[in-house]
Parts: sequence; C-alpha cells; structure tokens
Amino acid sequence: MVETVVKEVRGRVPVTVGVSASGTHLATAFARMAREHGADALMVAPPTGLKNLDAVAEYYRIVAAATGLPIVLQDEPVTTQVNMPAPFIAQVCADLPAIQAVKLEEPPTLPKITRLRALFGSRVAIFGGLGGVYFFEELSRGADGAMTGFPYPEALRAIREHFVAGRRDEARALFYRWLPLIRYESQPGATPGTAVGIRKEILRRRGWIASALVRAPAPALDAGTHAELAEILAAVGA
Amino acid sequence: MVETVVKEVRGRVPVTVGVSASGTHLATAFARMAREHGADALMVAPPTGLKNLDAVAEYYRIVAAATGLPIVLQDEPVTTQVNMPAPFIAQVCADLPAIQAVKLEEPPTLPKITRLRALFGSRVAIFGGLGGVYFFEELSRGADGAMTGFPYPEALRAIREHFVAGRRDEARALFYRWLPLIRYESQPGATPGTAVGIRKEILRRRGWIASALVRAPAPALDAGTHAELAEILAAVGA
Amino acid sequence: MVETVVKEVRGRVPVTVGVSASGTHLATAFARMAREHGADALMVAPPTGLKNLDAVAEYYRIVAAATGLPIVLQDEPVTTQVNMPAPFIAQVCADLPAIQAVKLEEPPTLPKITRLRALFGSRVAIFGGLGGVYFFEELSRGADGAMTGFPYPEALRAIREHFVAGRRDEARALFYRWLPLIRYESQPGATPGTAVGIRKEILRRRGWIASALVRAPAPALDAGTHAELAEILAAVGA
Amino acid sequence: MVETVVKEVRGRVPVTVGVSASGTHLATAFARMAREHGADALMVAPPTGLKNLDAVAEYYRIVAAATGLPIVLQDEPVTTQVNMPAPFIAQVCADLPAIQAVKLEEPPTLPKITRLRALFGSRVAIFGGLGGVYFFEELSRGADGAMTGFPYPEALRAIREHFVAGRRDEARALFYRWLPLIRYESQPGATPGTAVGIRKEILRRRGWIASALVRAPAPALDAGTHAELAEILAAVGA
Repeated sequence: MVETVVKEVRGRVPVTVGVSASGTHLATAFARMAREHGADALMVAPPTGLKNLDAVAEYYRIVAAATGLPIVLQDEPVTTQVNMPAPFIAQVCADLPAIQAVKLEEPPTLPKITRLRALFGSRVAIFGGLGGVYFFEELSRGADGAMTGFPYPEALRAIREHFVAGRRDEARALFYRWLPLIRYESQPGATPGTAVGIRKEILRRRGWIASALVRAPAPALDAGTHAELAEILAAVGA
Repeated sequence: MVETVVKEVRGRVPVTVGVSASGTHLATAFARMAREHGADALMVAPPTGLKNLDAVAEYYRIVAAATGLPIVLQDEPVTTQVNMPAPFIAQVCADLPAIQAVKLEEPPTLPKITRLRALFGSRVAIFGGLGGVYFFEELSRGADGAMTGFPYPEALRAIREHFVAGRRDEARALFYRWLPLIRYESQPGATPGTAVGIRKEILRRRGWIASALVRAPAPALDAGTHAELAEILAAVGA
Repeated sequence: MVETVVKEVRGRVPVTVGVSASGTHLATAFARMAREHGADALMVAPPTGLKNLDAVAEYYRIVAAATGLPIVLQDEPVTTQVNMPAPFIAQVCADLPAIQAVKLEEPPTLPKITRLRALFGSRVAIFGGLGGVYFFEELSRGADGAMTGFPYPEALRAIREHFVAGRRDEARALFYRWLPLIRYESQPGATPGTAVGIRKEILRRRGWIASALVRAPAPALDAGTHAELAEILAAVGA
Repeated sequence: MVETVVKEVRGRVPVTVGVSASGTHLATAFARMAREHGADALMVAPPTGLKNLDAVAEYYRIVAAATGLPIVLQDEPVTTQVNMPAPFIAQVCADLPAIQAVKLEEPPTLPKITRLRALFGSRVAIFGGLGGVYFFEELSRGADGAMTGFPYPEALRAIREHFVAGRRDEARALFYRWLPLIRYESQPGATPGTAVGIRKEILRRRGWIASALVRAPAPALDAGTHAELAEILAAVGA
C-alpha cells in the first residue's frame, strides 16, 4: 500500500506513514518496511497502555534510530491511554532531532499548543487533530496545520492559506461555513467505524472512491445518517 | 441548594435534581432529600463501574420506588463506564412507569434516538446531550429537546421552537449560527473543569454570575482561551 | 509459527490458535491462515472496544463460518473492554455449535462459571484464566480446566487429575503448595511484559528456552525480582 | 463515624481517615472535619481522572496545608486513573513534610518500593496494598507494613513481627499458610462489592459484626462462595 501511494503521489507531497505498534520491535520493523517502500516520514504514537514515560522515551529513541527518517510524534491518549505532559514531549523532541513534528490529540489541544510553542519554539512543527473541529483556534495558537481525514481537504487548505496570508476574518468565516460538516463527520462513537463510514460515504459521493463499505464489525450507516449527510452537504454548499 | 432553586423558580418550570450516586442507598437518600426540598423530578445515571446490567435494572427499580417522582434516566457511559444498549433502556422504561425521559450521551447519539423511538414510541421523552453539538440532528431524529449547560439557553429554545413549528430551514440556520460557540464551549478535556470554566466565564460576561472561578484542581482559563472566547462571541453575534 | 508448533506436537494434543483481531476481516483471515497451517481449533476474543453486543454476536458468527474449526470463546474484558453477560455468552454458544469452549477471564470468574453451567449444561467446556490463581475453586464450580501460561503445566495437570479422580483434599493441598508461585508469576502490571518476563525467566531456569528476554518496551526484571523468584521456587520445592 | 472510631480506639493506635474527594475544596473540607473529630492522620488519593501531574502536586499542597495533620499519600491508579511515577511521588514527599507515608497500589508494587526507597530513603514510610497478596515480598523490598482490610489482621501482624525480628523463614511460612485466604478474599470483580462481601462475611463468622450485608447494588454472595469460604477457612486453620 505504501508503494502504491508513493508511486501515485510522484513526489508532489511528502508521504508520512504511521508505524505505531504494540512493541518496539514491531514498530521498528514497520518503520524499516515503510522506508524501503519509499516513505518520506513516519508517524509514531506510544504503544497502547505504556504508561511508564521512561519506557515511552526509550521507545521513541529506538524507533528514531531505526531509519533516520523524520518523525511525527503522535499524542493520542484517547486511544493509547498514554498521557504525555507538554514538558515530556518537549524533552523527547530535544533529545531526538528526527522528531520534526507533533500531532496533538489530547483535548483540550489549544492550551497545549501554547505550552509546547513556549517550550520548543518553532524547531518542531505542530499539527492539530480531533477531526479539525478546533482548526481555526489551533492555527491561532501557533499550529502549522491539521492532520485529519476530513474529506474536503481543499477546504482546510483554503482556510489555512487565508490564515497564513493574514486574512483572519476570511479564514474564520470559511471555517465556520464548513464547521457543520467538520463536526458531523468527526462524531465520536462507541462502535469503531461510525466516523470512518461517514467519511467514506462523502468520498464516494465525490466520486473519489467506488464503495463506502467499512469492514465489519463497523455498522452500516443508517437511513437517518444518509439523510443528515445530504442535508448538511447541501446546507454548507459542498 | 435545591431549596434555593425551587424558591427562585416559583413553579415557572419543573426542577429536576440529579441524584446519581455510587450506591443504591445513597441515591435513594439523595432522592428523598430532593423531594423534601421541592424537586419535581430526578435525574439518575447508573453507579460508576456497575457493568452488570441486572444490577443496573435493580438500582433503577429501587431508586424509582423511593420517591414516586418522575425520573430522567441518564445514559452517560463516558463517565459511568456503563454501556446500556437501546433494548435494555427500553425494557427498564417499560418496567418503570416513573421513568418519563431519557437523556442520551452515548455517542453516536443519533442512531440510538431512532432505535429508542422505534422501541418505546412517544411514551418516554428523549433529550440529547453532548453539549448540544448535534442538537439539530437530535431534533430531526425525534428528540424532544436537549439537556446541556450551554450558557445561551434562549438560543437552544429558539432553535427548537423553529423546529417544532415546522420551520426547519430557520432552525438549521440558527443552529449553524451558534455552532462555533456550542462547539467551543463543550470542548472535552483531560483535566476536569475546562468546559465548566468556559461556561462560567460566559455567564460572568453576561452578568448572570459574579465570578467565573472554578474550584481547584480545575486550571484557570489561559489568555488564549479568553481571546478565543471574545472572538467567537463577537463572530456569532452573541 | 503455527506450522512449527503443529509439527513439533505431532498430534499428541490439539493445537488451538488465537486469532483475535481488531476487525472481522482480519480475524477471519487469521482463522483461515491458522487452519491452513494445521490448527485444530481457534481462540477468539471480541475486537477491543466493540461494546455493541449485537455486533459482537455477528463477529462470532462470521469468524465461526470462515473455517468450520472448533472455537474457544475468550471472555477477557480487562483487555477488550467488552463485557459479555452470562446470558449473552450462552446465547452465542447456542447459536453457534462451533463454539465448544469458553475461556473465562472476567473477575470474579467463580459465580460466572456457576451461571454458565446452569445455562448451557455440559454442551460447552469452560476453562478458567486469571493465571490460575483461582484454579481449585474454578474446578469446584465446574470448570474443565484452565488456560494459562503457568510455566509448570505438570503441576496444574496433577491438581486437575486429583480433582477429577475425586481426591479433593490432595488437589487442594497441591494447589496450595504451588499457590505462592502461581500468584507471583501472574502479578498484574501497568507496563506490559512484567508477568511475561517472570514466566520466561522460569522457563529459562528450567532449560526449556535459551533466553528470557522480553522485547522492548517491557522492562528487564530487576534484581529484587530475581531474588524473589529464587526464594519462591525453593520454598515451593519447584 | 470518625468520632465513634476515635472514641472506641482510646488512643491505642493512631486513626487515619481517608479524605480523598473529587476536588480540592471538598478534600480540604473533609480533612478539617476529620481533624475536628479526632483523626490523627489523613489518607489522600488524587481526584479521579486528574491526569495533569502539576495539578495533582498542587492538590496535595493545598490539602496538606489545610490541617497540618500527617498524610498518607495513596497511589491507587486502578481507581483514580492517575499514574504517579516514583520520581513524582518522591518529589511531592520532598516538598511536603506532612506526607509521612505512601500506600502503594500500582501493580507491580514490588519494583516501585525499591525505587522509592532509593529516592527518599527511610524519611517516608511505605505500606503495601493489593489486599496483601504480595505482603511478604513487599516487606522484603523495604515496606513498613500493609494497609488492607484483611479480616485476620493478627495474621498480618504476626507475619510482620517474624520478619522484623529476622525470622524470615517463619514469616514466609506463615504468609504462605494464610495465602489461600488472602488471595480469595481480595479477588477483583467487575461488580463493586464482591470482595467487601467476602470480607464482611468473614468478620460476621468471627463474631466481630452482626450482619454481612453489603449495600446494593453489590450482589449477595452466592452459595458457591459460602462453600468455598468454609473450605478455605478450615484448610488454612483460621
């Protein structure tokens, strides 16, 4: 899959590959495999349940040493159950020059962006997460962008371009226009797959993929979800 | 506190008092105390960690029998760790006529509203939660309203009145207008107190309360949060 | 690995292969792979976080249909976060004849064994888990055995043989003799790998494996653990 | 209740009162109330879910300042979801002389005792927890004792007296003799109340309390549990 993506992308943008795993051995194996198939960078979250931060730091050290590729440190405690305080993240980044970006998903992300910027300046890039629901505020706090699967990436790009060019009002107005969909698309769910199902259905409607099927045990979207999606897409002018 | 609220309200609206507790004995004691001081109804979530649904059903039976007051069953698995499937909730409602409403907070709430309506018709009222972030869609699925501490309740009321009167477009447009604030005010946070701090700060700006202080260990709002709040309030025309 | 084990075992005992996965597609792929390489049976836990029991039942249905091999249903809510009440397990077993055993790890296991036996009689075998810490009582409740990695399996076998032959006092005395080690070997730990490290160290001391190394990020056993292990092994006469 | 206990105890042993609460305000109120009614010391765990360790340190600072009473810091991440690394605990103890003891319940407790002893020497007492299941090893690692509700406290005392007097073999043999009961009495359980129910039933059999009832929603002990308890009590010679 990495090979196919790298080939299709033809160098137009860097390809970052997620290699998070349940142990160091597996993560480094994934990292080497990603590099062999052409990845430009790696995204790495701590192993799920590894609450000992000394072990987390060692994990990043070993995975970083395995390939020499740039690394995005992913801060995702909802999934990993690993809470990394801002000073810990800043220390890991200071120790490992390979870490060139942080993807933040510990809510609330906004004060954490401010704290991290105070700790590591502009040495490390910061990307927001959480489905883009706080994208405008993340940019205001100093984030460089967002990493999310929102199926209208051109909208996020336009918001960011307005922002970077100093057109704050235009950025905010455009973000607010898309917010009803951003919010709907990223709704949390006890059954894995709900948000992915909505995302794939939008991509299918756009003609980017042929089928919106999400593998079991994800439930199929119900009729209400299809109706809501149609209404929201029309209302935001997508 | 119940006494003060009941006195100030002077019967204009019913007063529902939360009596959830870690055990049946304590919840029934709270329930009786609430009734003595004038509560019109009770809101009851399962004891945290009580994953045995037979025990949950028995808990509701005993709490319901303690006072005879109408009950709002609160479905809040994020806090309680108790997942109540729709058929279980419908069965508990069928067994206990005192349960006159359900407050739903298991994401995604929308398909669950549809399933519950199919199971118990209009016998039991349904209120959405989750900070009102899906309020318009909750109404579309058949919810009677939302229970949330959003500090512009008049906005939620106006949205609902448009909806109930069949003015769907007006309801949706008004909901979208307020959405940037609804979303910001309800942001999740690892440290308890962030969302409450934002809520109290808005109430303070409105002049409804004198101080926005949230008790320790909740952190104080940072400067960025104050700035974001001012910007959003201006942008949505609050 | 399955191939190697099957070859070494040469049919002396059935080989059960764990094929639990994060989704149905992956679990069925693992199941087919296991069958191709000679597995006699499969062990299957629900996908982590799949709290919707309808989806869990469907997952078992699809995995069972994939190979026709006998299945051990693994009830392991500490890892999977999926709580399966006894009546739910009994219903899944009734619907799927391929399920021929249940491995119980929801504490407390003892009353659940009694409830399951009342529900499905002897149609389905029951194995205890939890490291064998309640093995004697599990047998008393009607369990057929235990599934655990305790590194003196001959001890568990001898306990069970006494029990099955009606020598209850001998079974209990032997279980109590080994209990200090069973308890020490199965100690829980926030950092994954502690219990496995102790287990491998014992196997190394027995000469069954050449190295007790546990892959990172599991910590190495500290000097105190080595000393405790030596003391306990001597004291229980291992 | 504090008053009654203090009165009955008549100064023979110090009375430590648990004042853990969901917030600083409530914990300090409980602390003052405990002091007024005669408590000699307080036991304090972090507020549940307070994963920000800076806030946890501040919480201890305020609660310690509220009364001047000695404090037992309770490390109980299974309940609180707050993981406190050994260096953090040592720092809080160094900053707050009122903290005179730590009760450890983060499994595995044994290496953490060793690390804490290396960090704070004998300035702070260490008590084991986890129901006493690792009591002998905890003493070997340098614990001063255990805090647990085991209903034969005289047994724990005798084990510790042997140990402190240098009679290691006698201490270990006595611990092993009681281990079948210690293990059974402390079995974990998804439904709160199982372990407490066993504990109260033993106290009732000893004639120390009149009723073993545990409040709802705790389930009643089943017949199998009563039989197991009788068998274990006889077998260990209790």
